[in-house]
Amino acid sequence: MTPGEVVTEFIRRIGKKNVDSACELLATDVHYDNVPMEPKHDGRDNVRDVLNMFLGDSPTVEWRVDRQTETGNIVMNERVDCFHMAGKPLEIPVMGIWEVNDQGLITLWRDYFDLATVTNQMSA
Amino acid sequence: MTPGEVVTEFIRRIGKKNVDSACELLATDVHYDNVPMEPKHDGRDNVRDVLNMFLGDSPTVEWRVDRQTETGNIVMNERVDCFHMAGKPLEIPVMGIWEVNDQGLITLWRDYFDLATVTNQMSA
Repeated sequence: MTPGEVVTEFIRRIGKKNVDSACELLATDVHYDNVPMEPKHDGRDNVRDVLNMFLGDSPTVEWRVDRQTETGNIVMNERVDCFHMAGKPLEIPVMGIWEVNDQGLITLWRDYFDLATVTNQMSA
Repeated sequence: MTPGEVVTEFIRRIGKKNVDSACELLATDVHYDNVPMEPKHDGRDNVRDVLNMFLGDSPTVEWRVDRQTETGNIVMNERVDCFHMAGKPLEIPVMGIWEVNDQGLITLWRDYFDLATVTNQMSA
């Protein structure tokens, strides 16, 4: 798989709510950063816990990738992440940057979005 | 110039505060979208006015591109945009998506960032 295909497959597994299976595509020392939020997350086990917290009670998960580019081992995409959290439907416009190592594992995942766009939907 | 080189040159001209010269790289019907902000801006003349408003009184403008990818006519980059607005120094983590047409002109420019990160610096 190319780096872009690894990211596409990761998001495909997320869309099936197969968090464990998706996390098999993460390096053990992956760094995960939701830019406007703290804390940042290091390590596959921690990222798995966070994803289960974000997605665990969502009846459906659809992260729609509108555009994706890749150069070397870097992948970027423009998405709309749709899922439910605490019973609230969220629709989050986001851009992500990903790095994939020579073993085809994701070592970096950083998402840029507007936090108020999320919190406003949470409190709606 | 490749699409990526067009974007790099646009940002280089912005860094010299040559807004007019930078805008020569925009298509006349360019669409410019700061995702968490309204209004959106259509047309080169309108975008030039907005950029002059954002950057006109800034002693320096440095948009640092940390990573950039390109596939086909689409370019994406991860940046830190540093400039002053209303006397306040701003440092904005941002990801942008750009589309460049066959004439080497930018037709789409959309930036993703956290608005509160900007307004907090404006009110500091």
